[in-house]
Amino acid sequence: MKLEVYADRMSQPSRAVIIFCKVNGIDYTELKEDTSKREHLTPEFAEINPMKQLPAIVDGKFKLFESHSILIYLACAFPGVADHWYPADLFKRSKIHSVLYWHHSNLRRTYVINTTILPALGYPSNQQAADEAEKFLVSSLSEIESFWLKGDGPFLLGGNQPSIADLSLVCELMQLEVLNEKYRYRLLGPYKKVQRWIKHTRYAISPHFGDVHKNLMNVKEKLKNKPLMEANHGGVSVSEQWWRARM
Amino acid sequence: MKLEVYADRMSQPSRAVIIFCKVNGIDYTELKEDTSKREHLTPEFAEINPMKQLPAIVDGKFKLFESHSILIYLACAFPGVADHWYPADLFKRSKIHSVLYWHHSNLRRTYVINTTILPALGYPSNQQAADEAEKFLVSSLSEIESFWLKGDGPFLLGGNQPSIADLSLVCELMQLEVLNEKYRYRLLGPYKKVQRWIKHTRYAISPHFGDVHKNLMNVKEKLKNKPLMEANHGGVSVSEQWWRARM
Repeated sequence: MKLEVYADRMSQPSRAVIIFCKVNGIDYTELKEDTSKREHLTPEFAEINPMKQLPAIVDGKFKLFESHSILIYLACAFPGVADHWYPADLFKRSKIHSVLYWHHSNLRRTYVINTTILPALGYPSNQQAADEAEKFLVSSLSEIESFWLKGDGPFLLGGNQPSIADLSLVCELMQLEVLNEKYRYRLLGPYKKVQRWIKHTRYAISPHFGDVHKNLMNVKEKLKNKPLMEANHGGVSVSEQWWRARM
Repeated sequence: MKLEVYADRMSQPSRAVIIFCKVNGIDYTELKEDTSKREHLTPEFAEINPMKQLPAIVDGKFKLFESHSILIYLACAFPGVADHWYPADLFKRSKIHSVLYWHHSNLRRTYVINTTILPALGYPSNQQAADEAEKFLVSSLSEIESFWLKGDGPFLLGGNQPSIADLSLVCELMQLEVLNEKYRYRLLGPYKKVQRWIKHTRYAISPHFGDVHKNLMNVKEKLKNKPLMEANHGGVSVSEQWWRARM
């Protein structure tokens, strides 16, 4: 039976898993769960993942969720996945685990959309929480710039080719694409290495990276050139619920 | 050169790493970093872990931080670690990864002390954040009870012996020990499987589990029988900064 991937391409960890399958030639069936329609909250989906989160996979009788554990599983279970994605070498592999756990405790915790983007788009939110989340995001970007990207290569940990950590973190940061350009530049502008790394990763995983981000880019296009003040007065067409459901 | 473990036993991930070394006969040197004295923020410690977090290890020339990545590394790098801690079987291992990442996004995120315990002890805190954190903690306990402990065995994922996931999560929940008994019972009371699992894990890893938790238990003893109202009026002897530094 073919690998089944339950995903919503508006969610960053879902995109990471789909891109990983595509770039590594893993044969899979994508089962779309539209979180804005609360499809992930149905009893049917609870059979796949009782935690009701995306992405989730079913490989034969084996069910798994949490995107990082899925990426590691796919890298180990499917033949032909190049070593750089999840190196067999214990030291390299351990460093990748370190990035992935750091990601969950830091960058992932900022919940970019929920707490940083929503207020920028003018939706009701807790301003104090948003300010704290922005500080946290900026601090995470600073740590990526100064520590995880301090090596010689263009990728995290000084790698010359991307690992699952690059894929996961860049997919996370891609959520920033939907921001007003000025606001996004204010966030990312100071981090030249981060900007280069995002470009390198997108390029290294083309055309799949771009393909899987099309939905997100459509949203970006819809929001393009909407001045922040207009957004602050409700001039955008996405609902808070729609965004929140995808986080 | 002997493995070096930089740790503060008041921090739950530090304890998990120390216990893992002890129970598996890994020869190590413990280097105490007293976070209440901000020892982890010194330039010297930044040489060990630029992120200035505990625990961190140095194994020869190899440096690593993030407790879960450390536990996985130790399980793979040191001979004689029993398979149940981090099984070689890909399916079992993947499920453990799933628990560990879930932990980081859920239970770990509640920052038990910062947002639930501090207000209970009467320290100034954001009540709304504390309420939300308590809801989050209760929701996490409910998920452990109904999902992670749904198997036949006494440990997570139905195991008959503990894995690094049991060790990590139980060390996290041990922070609740310092709470006023009544409050702790209100939190843990409804979760019978969780209570049994904590007992089983403590017992399975004795005497090391108890030894490494002695500092925490000393704090529990100091706070014992202090009514919540007394604590609410400053009747406890730990400082907010002292707790926060350990999270």
